[in-house]
Amino acid sequence: MLRTKEQYREKLFSMAPNVCVGGKMVRRDDPRLIPGINVLDITFDLAQDPEWKGLATATSSINGEEINRWAHLPQTPYDLMQKQKLIRLAARRAGGCIQRCMGHDAINALAICTKEIDMDKGTDYHQRFMNYLKMYQENDLDGCCAQTDSKGDRMKRPSQQSDPDAYVHIVEERKDGIVVSGFKMSITQAAYADEILVVPTRALMADDRDYAVAFALHGDWEGMTMVTRPVWLREKDDPAAPPFCRYGVSDSVIIFDKVFVPKERVFMCGEWEFGRRIAMLFADSHRHSYCGCKPGVSDILCGVTALAAEANGIQKAAHVREKLTEFAGTAELAYAAGIAAAVYGEKTDSGVFFPNNIYANVGRRHTGELIYHEYNTLTEVAGGISVTMPFAEDFECEPCRESLMRFIVRNSNLSAEDSLKIWKLVENVGASPMTSWYEIAGVHGGGSPIMETIALGIEYDYEEKKAVAKYLAGINANLDDSSWLKKEPAFGKKLE
Amino acid sequence: MLRTKEQYREKLFSMAPNVCVGGKMVRRDDPRLIPGINVLDITFDLAQDPEWKGLATATSSINGEEINRWAHLPQTPYDLMQKQKLIRLAARRAGGCIQRCMGHDAINALAICTKEIDMDKGTDYHQRFMNYLKMYQENDLDGCCAQTDSKGDRMKRPSQQSDPDAYVHIVEERKDGIVVSGFKMSITQAAYADEILVVPTRALMADDRDYAVAFALHGDWEGMTMVTRPVWLREKDDPAAPPFCRYGVSDSVIIFDKVFVPKERVFMCGEWEFGRRIAMLFADSHRHSYCGCKPGVSDILCGVTALAAEANGIQKAAHVREKLTEFAGTAELAYAAGIAAAVYGEKTDSGVFFPNNIYANVGRRHTGELIYHEYNTLTEVAGGISVTMPFAEDFECEPCRESLMRFIVRNSNLSAEDSLKIWKLVENVGASPMTSWYEIAGVHGGGSPIMETIALGIEYDYEEKKAVAKYLAGINANLDDSSWLKKEPAFGKKLE
Amino acid sequence: MLRTKEQYREKLFSMAPNVCVGGKMVRRDDPRLIPGINVLDITFDLAQDPEWKGLATATSSINGEEINRWAHLPQTPYDLMQKQKLIRLAARRAGGCIQRCMGHDAINALAICTKEIDMDKGTDYHQRFMNYLKMYQENDLDGCCAQTDSKGDRMKRPSQQSDPDAYVHIVEERKDGIVVSGFKMSITQAAYADEILVVPTRALMADDRDYAVAFALHGDWEGMTMVTRPVWLREKDDPAAPPFCRYGVSDSVIIFDKVFVPKERVFMCGEWEFGRRIAMLFADSHRHSYCGCKPGVSDILCGVTALAAEANGIQKAAHVREKLTEFAGTAELAYAAGIAAAVYGEKTDSGVFFPNNIYANVGRRHTGELIYHEYNTLTEVAGGISVTMPFAEDFECEPCRESLMRFIVRNSNLSAEDSLKIWKLVENVGASPMTSWYEIAGVHGGGSPIMETIALGIEYDYEEKKAVAKYLAGINANLDDSSWLKKEPAFGKKLE
Amino acid sequence: MLRTKEQYREKLFSMAPNVCVGGKMVRRDDPRLIPGINVLDITFDLAQDPEWKGLATATSSINGEEINRWAHLPQTPYDLMQKQKLIRLAARRAGGCIQRCMGHDAINALAICTKEIDMDKGTDYHQRFMNYLKMYQENDLDGCCAQTDSKGDRMKRPSQQSDPDAYVHIVEERKDGIVVSGFKMSITQAAYADEILVVPTRALMADDRDYAVAFALHGDWEGMTMVTRPVWLREKDDPAAPPFCRYGVSDSVIIFDKVFVPKERVFMCGEWEFGRRIAMLFADSHRHSYCGCKPGVSDILCGVTALAAEANGIQKAAHVREKLTEFAGTAELAYAAGIAAAVYGEKTDSGVFFPNNIYANVGRRHTGELIYHEYNTLTEVAGGISVTMPFAEDFECEPCRESLMRFIVRNSNLSAEDSLKIWKLVENVGASPMTSWYEIAGVHGGGSPIMETIALGIEYDYEEKKAVAKYLAGINANLDDSSWLKKEPAFGKKLE
Repeated sequence: MLRTKEQYREKLFSMAPNVCVGGKMVRRDDPRLIPGINVLDITFDLAQDPEWKGLATATSSINGEEINRWAHLPQTPYDLMQKQKLIRLAARRAGGCIQRCMGHDAINALAICTKEIDMDKGTDYHQRFMNYLKMYQENDLDGCCAQTDSKGDRMKRPSQQSDPDAYVHIVEERKDGIVVSGFKMSITQAAYADEILVVPTRALMADDRDYAVAFALHGDWEGMTMVTRPVWLREKDDPAAPPFCRYGVSDSVIIFDKVFVPKERVFMCGEWEFGRRIAMLFADSHRHSYCGCKPGVSDILCGVTALAAEANGIQKAAHVREKLTEFAGTAELAYAAGIAAAVYGEKTDSGVFFPNNIYANVGRRHTGELIYHEYNTLTEVAGGISVTMPFAEDFECEPCRESLMRFIVRNSNLSAEDSLKIWKLVENVGASPMTSWYEIAGVHGGGSPIMETIALGIEYDYEEKKAVAKYLAGINANLDDSSWLKKEPAFGKKLE
Repeated sequence: MLRTKEQYREKLFSMAPNVCVGGKMVRRDDPRLIPGINVLDITFDLAQDPEWKGLATATSSINGEEINRWAHLPQTPYDLMQKQKLIRLAARRAGGCIQRCMGHDAINALAICTKEIDMDKGTDYHQRFMNYLKMYQENDLDGCCAQTDSKGDRMKRPSQQSDPDAYVHIVEERKDGIVVSGFKMSITQAAYADEILVVPTRALMADDRDYAVAFALHGDWEGMTMVTRPVWLREKDDPAAPPFCRYGVSDSVIIFDKVFVPKERVFMCGEWEFGRRIAMLFADSHRHSYCGCKPGVSDILCGVTALAAEANGIQKAAHVREKLTEFAGTAELAYAAGIAAAVYGEKTDSGVFFPNNIYANVGRRHTGELIYHEYNTLTEVAGGISVTMPFAEDFECEPCRESLMRFIVRNSNLSAEDSLKIWKLVENVGASPMTSWYEIAGVHGGGSPIMETIALGIEYDYEEKKAVAKYLAGINANLDDSSWLKKEPAFGKKLE
Repeated sequence: MLRTKEQYREKLFSMAPNVCVGGKMVRRDDPRLIPGINVLDITFDLAQDPEWKGLATATSSINGEEINRWAHLPQTPYDLMQKQKLIRLAARRAGGCIQRCMGHDAINALAICTKEIDMDKGTDYHQRFMNYLKMYQENDLDGCCAQTDSKGDRMKRPSQQSDPDAYVHIVEERKDGIVVSGFKMSITQAAYADEILVVPTRALMADDRDYAVAFALHGDWEGMTMVTRPVWLREKDDPAAPPFCRYGVSDSVIIFDKVFVPKERVFMCGEWEFGRRIAMLFADSHRHSYCGCKPGVSDILCGVTALAAEANGIQKAAHVREKLTEFAGTAELAYAAGIAAAVYGEKTDSGVFFPNNIYANVGRRHTGELIYHEYNTLTEVAGGISVTMPFAEDFECEPCRESLMRFIVRNSNLSAEDSLKIWKLVENVGASPMTSWYEIAGVHGGGSPIMETIALGIEYDYEEKKAVAKYLAGINANLDDSSWLKKEPAFGKKLE
Repeated sequence: MLRTKEQYREKLFSMAPNVCVGGKMVRRDDPRLIPGINVLDITFDLAQDPEWKGLATATSSINGEEINRWAHLPQTPYDLMQKQKLIRLAARRAGGCIQRCMGHDAINALAICTKEIDMDKGTDYHQRFMNYLKMYQENDLDGCCAQTDSKGDRMKRPSQQSDPDAYVHIVEERKDGIVVSGFKMSITQAAYADEILVVPTRALMADDRDYAVAFALHGDWEGMTMVTRPVWLREKDDPAAPPFCRYGVSDSVIIFDKVFVPKERVFMCGEWEFGRRIAMLFADSHRHSYCGCKPGVSDILCGVTALAAEANGIQKAAHVREKLTEFAGTAELAYAAGIAAAVYGEKTDSGVFFPNNIYANVGRRHTGELIYHEYNTLTEVAGGISVTMPFAEDFECEPCRESLMRFIVRNSNLSAEDSLKIWKLVENVGASPMTSWYEIAGVHGGGSPIMETIALGIEYDYEEKKAVAKYLAGINANLDDSSWLKKEPAFGKKLE
């Protein structure tokens, strides 16, 4: 089933009001949440659009039906490349973060890890999860991944915290399910997701056993409160607002207060040895998603900068032309990393095709290191106007209007109206509440550069590189080039 | 006379309402302007404070009285170093831009350039300006410098623009004064300054003669309208708001519509050959000021980052310690450039001591290239909390309060209250409307890095460097090391 | 036919001595040329090695025989990916530049461009070239590409130069062929190649017609003199020298002095409209090759740095671990760009499969911008020892030997002998004549970053990005996302 | 007394041959050492030159005589600024490292630290050292500082090493002196210094007592062997060689094998508490010296790059002009840091005026972080010619000469001879053994960026910055601005 956005909203607005915004519990049709919901709409619209069949949709590996790609478990490198492309496409429509990829990354992680736990422990989580996923696909649900715990003291593990709620954990195990408590934070789109998919956020030790827990809940599950911070633009309510101003985002602190989770929705329960594994499965899948979304953000920043250059009449200045090519470097190297991650990905025991983690990490890190620089470039080219231009109302008022409409024109090929729209876009993209959100999410979302650096420090094969160096130094070394360079792309020679 | 802030406000609030904010003409006690006025208050308070005598005040070169340093014409390298230090001190109190330095830089430029015009043209602008300045000092006025024109097509000179108002210009010359029209933009603190000091923004040619004009007006002069964009934080009105939230800034588009300026307030009128000179005098003086203010901004960012590291409990992590030292590099290299600019400055014909432009430019550029990086560093260390933490109201509301006050503690040495204050500061500094303003002003205020690059491309002595290279290559070269390396510091050998 | 290295050398050493080294004409077995020849040996050895069948070899599209991949015209994305992998593999054996890719890139450019000229002009260059290539494949020849002209005044086109020899050009056209003159420079491996493939280096205009010329000559063709600069290490002649010291490189200025080229070896003759096209075909193919070779160089630098860290006992220091991951970022992003270039490459009219130029350019540029940084990183981790350690002979001499062999040990897990080998490798890689060669070739070889920046400025689709920005701004725009995002990978859905 | 270079050489060449080069003990007139000695000559010549009196010379604080500034203990900020300027001047003559500053920095460290030890311990080292220094000044000696030990395992302190000789240490204490053993490494100019000044290299603990030792020896002292690695250019012996080729450098491993040091030459003996202090005194003084020498190196690189741009005819290209200004940023920010270090330096108990360590560290680090980038810039502008141009001999040989002399001209305003000289200089500066030496010394000499980062992490006043942040956050904080901002420049208000 492919839901329409109207169906999505209908279900959403009927949920119990467990969302707190600005000190009050609100329903999900609160105007401050709508900009984020508008983003989700795009994900439903694209799947309805015949033009994007096969990109925005996929054939379910469970039942062979056409489903929304966000609910699909990738089976091939092509699937991964399509996901990446879909994110970039949608990001360009939403003016940035498409929000729905996180659920996709969570179902991948759960499908893979439940299989691996079962193989190791003889449990039956995988079938349980696949049953859940079947329902999820059939109803075209939107899942949100609640991974990041509030964490408390960052130098201590979960079981060492003075406040046990610093991480979500099992407080009671019953025959028919479990009871959990704790805080998750920075959970994007939680307030308007159908389902909340909860997974651990880090490696665990034996005494962290109670923190090894994964499960899924409806968005308005009893005992779960979301304290939500929406980010959006002032102009959002204006029907004449341009597309960029229609969209926003919300992040939530989710408070789990002795929440009961029935057995069929529990996908990990105490298997602490798999804490790091499931955390990294989500993280690496999400980093691969970033290799699609960040290039979309760069496309927007590139376009806005190029437009600002034109509106300034400086599009031919040498330093402007050079700066514009930097967006190509940022976007396309990350996108290429996503492609390489697909080409060198691998089939997991669950059947899910998983991206290569080295490429996912170098790609994600590249964008995270450059996001502030990209905004800097926009600022360099646009000039200071985005923080000093008069408010929209000033352009409407007498006696200023006539002067201001002359003031706003810098390139006589552009009308005053279009000039004003361009400079308002520059302001909205480069100097609005959304700017800080994108700058900071650009660093931390999906794992900060330092997290990728740590992952690469562990996963990159330095021994193989040292063997090359030893060989060249004349030290006896096992120059086993084959290990790495003999690895074939995932599709073998099929391409010949 | 050293005015109190009360005296400053009294005069201000009695001005005619020629300020437009959000589509309405407002009085200067409009709440949206107060955060900027609060910043100016600091400049009056410091001068009253016995602790800062000789730093915040100086002895007038005109009448030997103790005056506010902002109204003082520097006479020595020490004066320049004191100015730099005063800006850094005040910036740390205001949470950033102190706003009043621009008037100081404008009076320097006018004092110097009027003298030089007189010497070249036999005019009497200098005495006229000094008369004006005497009044300015005696009344402890706050001047705002209106330099940046709206500029229109950036590839054309003023006289080539299709709209003549793209640059402020003379429309009529009378016996008793002149009439001017045009647009100035991005004029910080214009809405709450006593005086508006208008100077040209660029090099001019003979047919730009009408654009070679400098003068001074009261803030509420007839025919001058300011369309003003205030930037401030939500919490500004809360009496319990922390200091950072009390402060803000405003920038204006100033519309000059056939404004009459009486002769005694006209300091340049048609001397187009001095267009570049006066523009650069203001710019280089202002760049020297940045060598004091930007280190102050770095001090704040460094302190906030160090505090966030502590609140995160990661203050001892190697990569955090390394990142913190980068603030030292940014702040102190720029500050050192300011000192070197003073030490190698020179006495102008007007008696004003002027900073060395090479050092002023390398110092300003260094900070402009790194401002986004500094915010990036704060973000890296603080994490994503600044854009995802609940609103202040959520921390007040039941039933969330108890959980949130536990949620906010990451370092058990800090109380929940202090933890919340720290993370709110991180949000206010790193993810608020002030953030974009500081990022963008950090790039463009006082001249963007590309402007300093252009200045250095013109002013740095490449011929001398090439002579060194030719000498080393064995090509006949005039190795005239003496030209540069024989230059003594401004104070000769007095230090021995 | 797959030649052995012995067969390669036998032919080479029988050539006429048209190579000048250090002021004397020498034979090709001159010891200073051998280090470069040793590199070529690797390319023959790998093709003989059963382990690397299908990587180092390919099936000819001309005659279906197994041939050396370097002589192969890529037909598929897989071919491009195999080329890239082969270069990385071989680079790790040679300690860097494998030299033979340039001939490969030249035959691609010629195969494609001759077809396109024929289609446009009705000429028959393509068949002529394919006949030549058949011979080339059957004899497993090594071709060198002579593209870069000496260029003279860089602001003038070829026909505007005061010295016509600044670019190679036609001086006479005869029935049976042409006569050419001029200078090519920086031509790697020319002195030990079987064939010299000459192509234009830049866009041409109608009056540059004589400069639109492409042809192939034996290495010792009459009238062609190579003034050759070999780069190698001191220890090269030592039979006990470690592998790194066996290898080197040579670059030549090639002087064409009225050289006759018979018709069957002329592949372009006056078609100036194709000057830019053939220049870019070679350049972009070569930039794709760099996406394989530079990661190989990074592998070596990474391995040497990791080994130095270990020998210093600092391999666990946080800043060292972080620095090591930077090599992963450099190498794998460039390698990923090569993969993406293959995946999004396209079939040309000639049947040759050609890499996507955007990805080839962002990949090559990324490495070119970082090569000095990579050496910097090695230096940071290794310390100053590479330029201050005693010469090899000192470690042999009494009475210093005993002390020096204790001096050289920093990690007691390593023997003095291995420690010495490691530090000598660090010296050879990081502070030898090869270092400067790799640093500078790393910037300029295959086109400098500024060349890729220029290419991206022309080729990257800014209009499409601006359309996204206009759409978001609410300006009427043709949001034709399909143009770019509908493009399928080269292999369609074959991977599903 | 101001020695002539002839007097310096006469003494030098009469020394006992304790220098080993390339496996043989050699006299100090060995041709491989001469390039380094040529550099020292400059330091004697400048002091003889009336033009540089007061810069290259100073008035001794001991006996009031005019002495070489290198032997002078700075008494004022002006002295520090003169030192800095002298280094820059001399560096431009020597093509880089002037080598003699290290002795200067060592006598500063010893003068200061001996005083402080005496005050703490009641010893009489200071008078002993001042007696030695009086002789040193009167004879215009050149001292070399032997600080860096070979260090062995970098994670262990001296007394923990398996090989005690990893650090120089006391093996016996006698009534009339001490006996020392151990290895020092990377000791620049040791092979042609009059005196070797030995100081500890790191902080020490009580059980490292034997490693707390400082003393001075003649260069050819019995029991001390120097294994020396000279770095120089091939052309050095050519009388027609251009100045750059006359100069070089040598570094030594110094082996101390039970060396007896008489009491009057021992300046520290077991006072381990002062290990860090004396190490940092030398380091910080040396880092201040780098604030003079590195700008000199940047001057050369800037000049060579500007010359290469001109020879390429691209001096007006926008990206070239921008790149050239980067040298100004590097050189002048570091130089400014040196000036600020002088202005904010302080008088020590010994009377020596010492530079502010924060400024010395940010200045030195800035250059160390950018040295590879500077060479990168030269390479970008110059092109690949520096590693591919024919050898000098080729330009002399028939039949290539005529063609090559045409080949070498790219700017018709330059003769072939000057073009050749320029490109040879580019090669010698950018792609010779000196290049690697300067790149690596640029990172590590005087302490690598990571050492300055560590120093700043310890010394920079983060508490004061955090107090500012707390104040702005509304947390009770001691906003003691006075601590830092009340600090007056070293010369008080003298400049007014």
